[in-house]
Amino acid sequence: MFDQQLAQKAAKNLKIMREKKPLIHNITNFVVMNYTANALLACGASPVMAHAAEEVEEMVSFAGALVLNIGTLTPYWIDSMLKAGKRANELNVPIILDPVGSGATKLRTESSKRLIDNLKINVVRGNASEVLSLAHEGSRTKGVDSIHSVDEAADAAIALASELDTTLAITGEVDLITDGERVCKVLNGHELMGYVTGTGCTATALIGAFLAVDKDSVEAATTALAYFGLAGEKGAAQAAAPGSFMIAMLDALFSIDEAALIEGARIKI
Amino acid sequence: MFDQQLAQKAAKNLKIMREKKPLIHNITNFVVMNYTANALLACGASPVMAHAAEEVEEMVSFAGALVLNIGTLTPYWIDSMLKAGKRANELNVPIILDPVGSGATKLRTESSKRLIDNLKINVVRGNASEVLSLAHEGSRTKGVDSIHSVDEAADAAIALASELDTTLAITGEVDLITDGERVCKVLNGHELMGYVTGTGCTATALIGAFLAVDKDSVEAATTALAYFGLAGEKGAAQAAAPGSFMIAMLDALFSIDEAALIEGARIKI
Amino acid sequence: MFDQQLAQKAAKNLKIMREKKPLIHNITNFVVMNYTANALLACGASPVMAHAAEEVEEMVSFAGALVLNIGTLTPYWIDSMLKAGKRANELNVPIILDPVGSGATKLRTESSKRLIDNLKINVVRGNASEVLSLAHEGSRTKGVDSIHSVDEAADAAIALASELDTTLAITGEVDLITDGERVCKVLNGHELMGYVTGTGCTATALIGAFLAVDKDSVEAATTALAYFGLAGEKGAAQAAAPGSFMIAMLDALFSIDEAALIEGARIKI
Repeated sequence: MFDQQLAQKAAKNLKIMREKKPLIHNITNFVVMNYTANALLACGASPVMAHAAEEVEEMVSFAGALVLNIGTLTPYWIDSMLKAGKRANELNVPIILDPVGSGATKLRTESSKRLIDNLKINVVRGNASEVLSLAHEGSRTKGVDSIHSVDEAADAAIALASELDTTLAITGEVDLITDGERVCKVLNGHELMGYVTGTGCTATALIGAFLAVDKDSVEAATTALAYFGLAGEKGAAQAAAPGSFMIAMLDALFSIDEAALIEGARIKI
Repeated sequence: MFDQQLAQKAAKNLKIMREKKPLIHNITNFVVMNYTANALLACGASPVMAHAAEEVEEMVSFAGALVLNIGTLTPYWIDSMLKAGKRANELNVPIILDPVGSGATKLRTESSKRLIDNLKINVVRGNASEVLSLAHEGSRTKGVDSIHSVDEAADAAIALASELDTTLAITGEVDLITDGERVCKVLNGHELMGYVTGTGCTATALIGAFLAVDKDSVEAATTALAYFGLAGEKGAAQAAAPGSFMIAMLDALFSIDEAALIEGARIKI
Repeated sequence: MFDQQLAQKAAKNLKIMREKKPLIHNITNFVVMNYTANALLACGASPVMAHAAEEVEEMVSFAGALVLNIGTLTPYWIDSMLKAGKRANELNVPIILDPVGSGATKLRTESSKRLIDNLKINVVRGNASEVLSLAHEGSRTKGVDSIHSVDEAADAAIALASELDTTLAITGEVDLITDGERVCKVLNGHELMGYVTGTGCTATALIGAFLAVDKDSVEAATTALAYFGLAGEKGAAQAAAPGSFMIAMLDALFSIDEAALIEGARIKI
């Protein structure tokens, strides 16, 4: 029923990531810095948060991946993201972008597009409205307001991934990952995740950690989301309310081993 | 013994808030962003943190309430608060101000007064010394240093609320809420709340969530504080030390239902 | 086997600190602000986070200690640290510096050195590579890259402490504290601490709290690290994964009493 090859790949990525402990350079928002750093540590990676224009190019040169998250953006932060991103591109350090709130305000939509236009970004992760807001004017992609079903959203995402030449990871009840050709779906997750701030941002950071060890963007994003969703499921088995759940989810990121991930991953192609 | 009408109102506000899931726009301090976002999610609201001058006017236009908190202020943040606040006033989006540390440094006292002088603020929440520091020079209100009893503080607060034409919510062992005419007291709460950073800020954010569904500032603040204090009591029933307590309090915000709130609210007029 | 006099001193410092509840002024990084504030509250101190150039001099004048942590530095923050630090020096408020990431980027190394060159700093806490990166050019101190054993690191630290005329606290599996003459070692701690972000920063903040009541920098740092390490051990006795561990560690900071600290401190001279 579920794809076994990608479940195996998820376990392999987790294993390699825990061995290599890649440095993940985050330029991210104030709300989630602590939680995503703890999530990255719990899963076995090494987070660093650094946003000063004076040091981002140097910092990213040590990194296995660069995470850009516009959650509490100001123009200074976007400039630093561009600086870090250009250096990352030169060094072939993979980049993942989380366009938090794109589509909601002009600043966020334009900043996201500026990052996409000026950088080679390996993965963009967001919810459907954030991701679909990234279409250029004149795009053939349907706008989010004219989308009325999951299937229409999937079609729009596939078209947009080709247009932007990147991998899109749209998270929701079912996660959809596509580079315009391949399409993967992840059914892992739990509704309590919606009651904890920064679970989307954490998913993004974990994709960053998997990108550091897996150059196939679709597979890195898909397997990271299966792992994260499974941590949500394991957390929800321990806790029935959001406070204890968010702690149990961190515990699960630490405790899930390769066998548990192979058994629990619910990925479809 | 306790006011039943306001206990009913508390439950009604909680119910409507959970149905409407109002967007609460927070311009708040770095220390508490994560915890207050999680508290707002746990209680059923939708938090957003956004402080860029370029987007605050747009963001607040989607919001059910605006929370201004000066905890780690710099002048840039105050300017953004003024921008967001002016737009909120135009749109009749209620505003709550948390003057963290007002009275302690000149920057904090003056920034708080600048916000109050330039905006129509629906509720100000702080401890007694923060709130009473807001009196103008030449005010007939007694300064905090010359106040020696709870009764004197109450008298000063009532006079100051009239003078500032706002609702004041002074939290402490007993919370006092007044618009200069009506006076409500909330006896809910637990001493462990003082061992968790940002409980005051979280109270402020929750009042914001209730203001989004209840235009009566005194009742919104009173019922929100009863709900929050009850969450503290429920949390303390689960946990005896601050770490597990702060998690249990989040759980309680999620788990308290209308019946529990009616039963547990300890409000006096 | 372990030093009883310093174990007694640890308990005494804890007792006095809980009685005096010193205000600890933190200019620290975004990632750990919440956790270190909660840790300071749990242990009985009063944290304040304030970084605005306009208020740091006023704020530090109320403080029992000043904590400078460069974790998410930008030049503005370093300038505020210098301002606060100069005023702290005038008022004899002890200063502790956490040079997070010094040695990794030029900005961090140079900012750390600028703080050390311009301020009288009572304690510097970091890991071995951070601390040893602080040697001046032409220093007789061995660089971190040429150090191949714990003993060589200890020798380098002793030489560097004399050179910089401060107390160095190098934390790791065994913590080493030295002012160039005295050398203390703390064996408390648990490996799960490495899976929680900001445990180093929290150690720094707690040393700040102990410096507020103990003018002997070596003894303040040593006893604070024994207390913090013991909290790690107690936390690990309650929790087997990082999420629940970080909460249990906060609980332990609150729950450890003088007797437990005397019994549990593992300090060697």
